[in-house]
Amino acid sequence: MARDRTPRLLDQLTWPEVRDAAARDAGVIVPVGATEQHGPHLPLATDALLATELALAVAEPLDLHVAPPLAYGYRSRPLSGGGPSFPGTISLGARTLMALLEDVLAGLVQSGFRRLAVLSWHFENANFVYEAAWLAHERCKPTAAQIMVVEAPFAELSEDTMQALFGDEFPGWDVEHAAILETSLMLHLRPELVRFDRAVDDAAARHPFYDVVPPPADFVPASGVLWKATRAAPEKGASAWPEIVSSLRDALAVDLPARPA
Amino acid sequence: MARDRTPRLLDQLTWPEVRDAAARDAGVIVPVGATEQHGPHLPLATDALLATELALAVAEPLDLHVAPPLAYGYRSRPLSGGGPSFPGTISLGARTLMALLEDVLAGLVQSGFRRLAVLSWHFENANFVYEAAWLAHERCKPTAAQIMVVEAPFAELSEDTMQALFGDEFPGWDVEHAAILETSLMLHLRPELVRFDRAVDDAAARHPFYDVVPPPADFVPASGVLWKATRAAPEKGASAWPEIVSSLRDALAVDLPARPA
Amino acid sequence: MARDRTPRLLDQLTWPEVRDAAARDAGVIVPVGATEQHGPHLPLATDALLATELALAVAEPLDLHVAPPLAYGYRSRPLSGGGPSFPGTISLGARTLMALLEDVLAGLVQSGFRRLAVLSWHFENANFVYEAAWLAHERCKPTAAQIMVVEAPFAELSEDTMQALFGDEFPGWDVEHAAILETSLMLHLRPELVRFDRAVDDAAARHPFYDVVPPPADFVPASGVLWKATRAAPEKGASAWPEIVSSLRDALAVDLPARPA
Amino acid sequence: MARDRTPRLLDQLTWPEVRDAAARDAGVIVPVGATEQHGPHLPLATDALLATELALAVAEPLDLHVAPPLAYGYRSRPLSGGGPSFPGTISLGARTLMALLEDVLAGLVQSGFRRLAVLSWHFENANFVYEAAWLAHERCKPTAAQIMVVEAPFAELSEDTMQALFGDEFPGWDVEHAAILETSLMLHLRPELVRFDRAVDDAAARHPFYDVVPPPADFVPASGVLWKATRAAPEKGASAWPEIVSSLRDALAVDLPARPA
Amino acid sequence: MARDRTPRLLDQLTWPEVRDAAARDAGVIVPVGATEQHGPHLPLATDALLATELALAVAEPLDLHVAPPLAYGYRSRPLSGGGPSFPGTISLGARTLMALLEDVLAGLVQSGFRRLAVLSWHFENANFVYEAAWLAHERCKPTAAQIMVVEAPFAELSEDTMQALFGDEFPGWDVEHAAILETSLMLHLRPELVRFDRAVDDAAARHPFYDVVPPPADFVPASGVLWKATRAAPEKGASAWPEIVSSLRDALAVDLPARPA
Amino acid sequence: MARDRTPRLLDQLTWPEVRDAAARDAGVIVPVGATEQHGPHLPLATDALLATELALAVAEPLDLHVAPPLAYGYRSRPLSGGGPSFPGTISLGARTLMALLEDVLAGLVQSGFRRLAVLSWHFENANFVYEAAWLAHERCKPTAAQIMVVEAPFAELSEDTMQALFGDEFPGWDVEHAAILETSLMLHLRPELVRFDRAVDDAAARHPFYDVVPPPADFVPASGVLWKATRAAPEKGASAWPEIVSSLRDALAVDLPARPA
Repeated sequence: MARDRTPRLLDQLTWPEVRDAAARDAGVIVPVGATEQHGPHLPLATDALLATELALAVAEPLDLHVAPPLAYGYRSRPLSGGGPSFPGTISLGARTLMALLEDVLAGLVQSGFRRLAVLSWHFENANFVYEAAWLAHERCKPTAAQIMVVEAPFAELSEDTMQALFGDEFPGWDVEHAAILETSLMLHLRPELVRFDRAVDDAAARHPFYDVVPPPADFVPASGVLWKATRAAPEKGASAWPEIVSSLRDALAVDLPARPA
Repeated sequence: MARDRTPRLLDQLTWPEVRDAAARDAGVIVPVGATEQHGPHLPLATDALLATELALAVAEPLDLHVAPPLAYGYRSRPLSGGGPSFPGTISLGARTLMALLEDVLAGLVQSGFRRLAVLSWHFENANFVYEAAWLAHERCKPTAAQIMVVEAPFAELSEDTMQALFGDEFPGWDVEHAAILETSLMLHLRPELVRFDRAVDDAAARHPFYDVVPPPADFVPASGVLWKATRAAPEKGASAWPEIVSSLRDALAVDLPARPA
Repeated sequence: MARDRTPRLLDQLTWPEVRDAAARDAGVIVPVGATEQHGPHLPLATDALLATELALAVAEPLDLHVAPPLAYGYRSRPLSGGGPSFPGTISLGARTLMALLEDVLAGLVQSGFRRLAVLSWHFENANFVYEAAWLAHERCKPTAAQIMVVEAPFAELSEDTMQALFGDEFPGWDVEHAAILETSLMLHLRPELVRFDRAVDDAAARHPFYDVVPPPADFVPASGVLWKATRAAPEKGASAWPEIVSSLRDALAVDLPARPA
Repeated sequence: MARDRTPRLLDQLTWPEVRDAAARDAGVIVPVGATEQHGPHLPLATDALLATELALAVAEPLDLHVAPPLAYGYRSRPLSGGGPSFPGTISLGARTLMALLEDVLAGLVQSGFRRLAVLSWHFENANFVYEAAWLAHERCKPTAAQIMVVEAPFAELSEDTMQALFGDEFPGWDVEHAAILETSLMLHLRPELVRFDRAVDDAAARHPFYDVVPPPADFVPASGVLWKATRAAPEKGASAWPEIVSSLRDALAVDLPARPA
Repeated sequence: MARDRTPRLLDQLTWPEVRDAAARDAGVIVPVGATEQHGPHLPLATDALLATELALAVAEPLDLHVAPPLAYGYRSRPLSGGGPSFPGTISLGARTLMALLEDVLAGLVQSGFRRLAVLSWHFENANFVYEAAWLAHERCKPTAAQIMVVEAPFAELSEDTMQALFGDEFPGWDVEHAAILETSLMLHLRPELVRFDRAVDDAAARHPFYDVVPPPADFVPASGVLWKATRAAPEKGASAWPEIVSSLRDALAVDLPARPA
Repeated sequence: MARDRTPRLLDQLTWPEVRDAAARDAGVIVPVGATEQHGPHLPLATDALLATELALAVAEPLDLHVAPPLAYGYRSRPLSGGGPSFPGTISLGARTLMALLEDVLAGLVQSGFRRLAVLSWHFENANFVYEAAWLAHERCKPTAAQIMVVEAPFAELSEDTMQALFGDEFPGWDVEHAAILETSLMLHLRPELVRFDRAVDDAAARHPFYDVVPPPADFVPASGVLWKATRAAPEKGASAWPEIVSSLRDALAVDLPARPA
């Protein structure tokens, strides 16, 4: 069964193609996700898939390639991902994640790339991916590479889209885990992986501004869903996705511009 | 565009499915590859793809799932992979690879799995993946998990297949990089990713029993192909693949047997 | 010159006093700050001082002691602290900060304490302090200590206070660095350390939702002030402070309750 | 309550003041202490306080600033500090202490300082602080900073002072822990923190030239006092202190001289 | 009892002799062995001794010195060394071995040596010694040192010698542990350390192409001998040894040539 | 040439002999030395040799074995060993030395030994060897092993011997490097390795109570000899050695006693 080639996937290129890409100052996005429970209806790969789809969606016009995604992310935290108690949540310690991303970024610089972006779709990766970028930059000195670090994949959605997604009940992005937006996006982008009939509405009994280790039981919703997944719909995903893509594309155009031909 | 779900891919499951899999004592294979030049005709992902395809090929009858593959491997060495000078070869240091695999294995144990296998298709990963398994085993004590460590993906091929692949000129497995077997397997398994028209026959000018850092120029073939890639053919891949699959399946059946129902 | 003893400071106790405190199930807060530029008018110690003052303010009624603060924090980031280019900004790498806090927390557990809190007043410490708490908890198993991790020191202020501080122009907490709230609190709490005559209004030319390494010049305001410091006033600090104290005290009372006598 | 500003404390400066200090080649002392039991009469902070007071005492004439002290030190050892069994002794592992001091020193170099001193008042920190200075020096190359490493805070005291302190019974500096000199200095410098009525005379039953892990019980005096604390007196501190200050001042004048104006 | 001086042992030289050796571009071999069970008849030091003897045997004509051998190696693996369950097998973790060898190599470069070789006689050290060489090379940049990495001490033996050693029953080099070749070489080189009367023939019940952690019992032969030790003889060692020496000498002459006078 | 077997050398035993030794509660000493310049007349191995000779001298009556010595030690410091600028001084960083010794000690515990001693003859190893013992002890819990840590190899010599060695001019032990005692002991124990005709009297121009990184030139004596090596004599070594041996033997008898038969 021959499948399509996806020429923006860096690892589907041959090395002479990579050499030529670097020579024309193409760039590379490294998607960083997680292998983490996403309720009874979404696959463990949700974060890694969304990061990769988003990277692919912006790649072409900016002459970017998409590196093999980091499929494992930092420890799931109860208040933003359900936490470590769910089977299937397979996380990296902070040191491991930082070392991994640092090596990957340094390898890209050594391959000749100067326009780099880290795109994380998993709140818990924040700061760790920044440190990795910092360390890679230090290691590769004096090479003048630029590393964009995207720890939250978009700034904000339009009022219309917010209204469509959440109505008057926007609970904050931190509980948008396996909930309305993520489910809608997956229904839009990868419906074959969604078991929407199993989706539920759920929430942690408490959601304070701090965390506790080990997590109190009432920080963890039984289903792993942090908000109302049943309200998701493919058309909501179809409406939000172009805004998300466009937000990132604009950002890249400003801070990681393609070299004028 | 809805694609097929591949139910043996662990990260396409939901967490309740993972919970149930662990409860019935299903196992998990972690494929470990590399992002590494494979000549002018094979993609960087060759090792990661072959490791993953092999894992998927043995998964079903032994009730195994396939974890997200480690797409980046240990530093490419000139005498078995062309070395670090090719653009697109993006490698991890030893400490990083070991930490990554250790965390992944420990996470699988924490998810309830007891039958684990590491399947590496990249010679340079050897010993590092063993140490990672060792460290994960130490960390997870006293949990009684078993970790099979497959550092070379098969023991030997039949005489007929060897003859078909190499004729009377078998150069040793260490130079089987981007060469006859790997190219044939890719032509068999993922032809859309092979640019066979660009394949060449090549070899390092020297191939001694030791290594040198930094590598002498004559350890590195200009094309990145370590042997005669043009001799590859899809039917050669089709002949070798079932033997490779069967060799691994037999091994797993002995040392990682599925629990009797 | 005899100064006052501050009996809630853990390091002013003798060891028999510590022994007795642990025996009665007293707890300990570890303030985590930074040594970081805070504009031309606030001292480098601002974050460490505010974290310590806040810890002291909640200590008594909950029978908590305040450990020696971690005076150095994670790397200052341009968009929330001005970044590393200012003389006087002396930061720790992520691994160092995590190791330091992990050791301190483990040492407190070994001293017999079971009610622990980490109180960070420096956005950049987020996630690193969580990982440290996680690692300390793992290391100290099976001791049943509880570690509260406060990565942002309060949830929200009352509308009145917000109005008093920011009027209709609240720019978001991330730029509240050396700006209205921090300056007001320092004028309220430690006026002898504020050179208010040097305060300026400033802001980064750009403040996007992502970061870049190395930082573009227009991410960094020349003064190191990220918002309008001149609008600060001691009475604004006096109005906000009790709300901040009360928010934390309530949180501690719920998740780190003092043992009933 | 407005307190005094202590202008030699680096973290009480603003960043423009730090910039100016570095520009005129001012230097910085980093005090390194411990959080460690000091008997029933001295606070845990004794070592950190004495290191900081000493640093402040020499700072002005040599144009040195005093960085935030490292309040936590290397593991207390029974024969020089009572060991880890006392509640309140909160220690760092060797790797942590070295990483912490290395980062701080490198941060000072990055802020523009070239005259650096590490001043440890805690025997157990020896060698670890040297390694940290070594590593910071390596990291900051080719910057020509000089790092003085003071692992014992003074060379020797005058015969008169020795006689006043110890009479004919000087037991060696290694047991001068919570004993005559430290108590006398604290009575002289920070009397509000001394509970002299609780001071005792004590000693380990054995004090051999080697150590044992885990420590035999007779290496550890029950009180945590390693020698005769009751013989301390404020006037003994008042007599020793100027000698200690002067010894360090002379050392700094030789090896870390202020730039001639 | 005066013993002989062995002038090729680097650590028997004085520093002016080392200075002169480096100045004339002499080189250094670092032998890496193991402290590992070698059956009931060979000493734990077997690998370290053979590595050192081999280094000494090639040193003179190529103007090489022999550094103090690394007597401890990577964890013994059941299928090539019997594994960790034998008393006397004292192994290093991967990180430790790599750090040790990296520091030693970097120290040799700092002493002025440019011709370096690592000679390992212990299969399990493979890849780890390569990584150490890589890291040392990175650390010492831009110094142009060359590091030869010999992970298997020879390429192949003559047909006659193979016949003499193994007859028609060559089992593969991986089980040549405490077996015919190693025992014969020790009988030839260090007979006083061999208890040949205790030698046995043994083998693991299974010897598959993969490994398992923890090792199944039938991977481990009870005696620690992996093949037929009783077939060893001093004359077999005497016949193989010159071939091994000559193989390495030739390799060194090509890739680590002595500077023409 | 058959040499003698030295049955107290652990690595000359076979594994069944080790098993039996551990079973009868024999102990093990790990000598720790350095590879470090010792002036123009002593070999680099001096510290490692003296540590090993001393270990062998006390081994028999206490039923101790001597593990393979750690031939490389912590960085030579100018004031106690001449420092890093001498060719032939090949040192380990602190982390490396600690990891190495920790692994060795843990390996000995795993082999069944409970009576362990670390014997360092190199001042710069102090504290690092203690930390390694501490970490090994932590790692091996709950095994009840005892680790004696000897950081200075003896407490004091008799007045007669001191007089014989130094006359009225004892300069302190820290400069006893390549000087009277070390040279005398080497003349006594390993005369074939001493080039006494090249010995000189030397000293650093300055020898303060603190250190400086990088070292000022006048901390380093040109010859690497820190005191008057020409005053050494074999008979002085012969007089001091038994006192040193006896001091250690007594210590071991108290804190690492052999099990009563």
